[in-house]
Amino acid sequence: MKKLLLCLAVLCASPFIASAKFVTKSVAYEHDGVKLEGYLAYDEAFVTPKKQAPGVLVIPEWWGLTDYPKTRAHQLAALGYVAFVADMYGAGITTTDAKKAGELAGQFYGSPLMAARATAGLLQLLKTGLVDSSRTAAIGYCFGGSAVQALAYSGAPLKGVVSFHGGIIPVPADAATKTKTKIMMCNGAIDGFVKPEEIDAFTKAMNAAKLDYQFINYSGAVHAFTNPDADKIAAAAGLSGIAYNAAADHRSWAHMQAFFAEIFAKK
Amino acid sequence: MKKLLLCLAVLCASPFIASAKFVTKSVAYEHDGVKLEGYLAYDEAFVTPKKQAPGVLVIPEWWGLTDYPKTRAHQLAALGYVAFVADMYGAGITTTDAKKAGELAGQFYGSPLMAARATAGLLQLLKTGLVDSSRTAAIGYCFGGSAVQALAYSGAPLKGVVSFHGGIIPVPADAATKTKTKIMMCNGAIDGFVKPEEIDAFTKAMNAAKLDYQFINYSGAVHAFTNPDADKIAAAAGLSGIAYNAAADHRSWAHMQAFFAEIFAKK
Repeated sequence: MKKLLLCLAVLCASPFIASAKFVTKSVAYEHDGVKLEGYLAYDEAFVTPKKQAPGVLVIPEWWGLTDYPKTRAHQLAALGYVAFVADMYGAGITTTDAKKAGELAGQFYGSPLMAARATAGLLQLLKTGLVDSSRTAAIGYCFGGSAVQALAYSGAPLKGVVSFHGGIIPVPADAATKTKTKIMMCNGAIDGFVKPEEIDAFTKAMNAAKLDYQFINYSGAVHAFTNPDADKIAAAAGLSGIAYNAAADHRSWAHMQAFFAEIFAKK
Repeated sequence: MKKLLLCLAVLCASPFIASAKFVTKSVAYEHDGVKLEGYLAYDEAFVTPKKQAPGVLVIPEWWGLTDYPKTRAHQLAALGYVAFVADMYGAGITTTDAKKAGELAGQFYGSPLMAARATAGLLQLLKTGLVDSSRTAAIGYCFGGSAVQALAYSGAPLKGVVSFHGGIIPVPADAATKTKTKIMMCNGAIDGFVKPEEIDAFTKAMNAAKLDYQFINYSGAVHAFTNPDADKIAAAAGLSGIAYNAAADHRSWAHMQAFFAEIFAKK
């Protein structure tokens, strides 16, 4: 509604100015010799080179840069942010095969490549010239949730990261000194892919390191609970323990927005 | 801003109508022969007998109905809700002595009296005639957090309850059939008064009963983290492990608001 009114105001004020538009585009970039293709989204009603906005990096599930993270980028753009979906695998590489996805994602777990490849995406977001570089965050889904944790532990200069049903990355020994960012963990309370002992170890290590986090368990939610197509994807891939949960999806999105309101507030 | 505009509109429309006002008052009532005195707050800009609003019951800490829960009632009234602080102990009974507080609160733990006394407060809230009875919730602090859990398990017809640093009430065996309300638990991640094994038992029982809950751990927060005077109160009472935490306070309040937006939405 606000956007509509703004558009009308612009149109009425001057018939010679083009109306604000919703911009989406693929962006080619490179990391460590690998050709990548990310996806940028923003709304000119909120964002111009002269009116920079907070920037949000989005890291996809282990299926790669499919339509799902793009819809999240659109939602973030509609909220007034500059959203950039990182490509972690290589231009055009996506899969619906769980074994292949496991191989693609597997190369990053336990390797500095996870944070490094995510950082390459962050740099592309900043290179747009549209982002207030003092106000950035990263969100990620499943594998991408793990990647935003790795990004946080690497010392990335983000205000915050949100992991949606991410596999838990063990908190490294140097986290207390290196990590600069606040962490929100949105977890399905009955997610069989995230073990209670992993949550326990995460909590203890974060408490010991005195890091800023929120850990939220959503009842009834299993792995991939934010993806409306999770059930279909899981059935096609022959995976169990993966399903959409509308309540947990809406709640975690609202919690992310409250978190952004906090971390992006101008001092 | 909305409130201001509404006031201006009312004033302009008719100079004979008094402007909207913020109403607060003590309300005498009784439960099981015990004389009680609760506290009502609402804003006539949002609420009139002809324009009912969602109602929120507030249950105090074990210190009794002090100024602290009243400030929460004022904040809820400013959000457009009808807020009623329940008196659990008896008219005018408050204490700053931990031993006395333990005795006062102790009579309720493990007893049906906890839910029954809280229900008496809920009935007073409804008796105001200002509340849309299909849209009610209860929130509580420490002891009051436990009480709203007990209220939920008793089958109270609330849309939701929020426990702020409440001691955990074991989920009763009949919870799956009796409980009608959604539960939000806002917990200090390093609260020494809430044991990991209690959280674990809560989570397992709620999952088994397929009840709707969100369990949120806030880093760095100990017991009573929402009360700005917690440090002073604890020092005076010679208690340790109790302190205010501004980040956890603001976050949990925002999460409560997101929860209310969900449960009070008109279908």
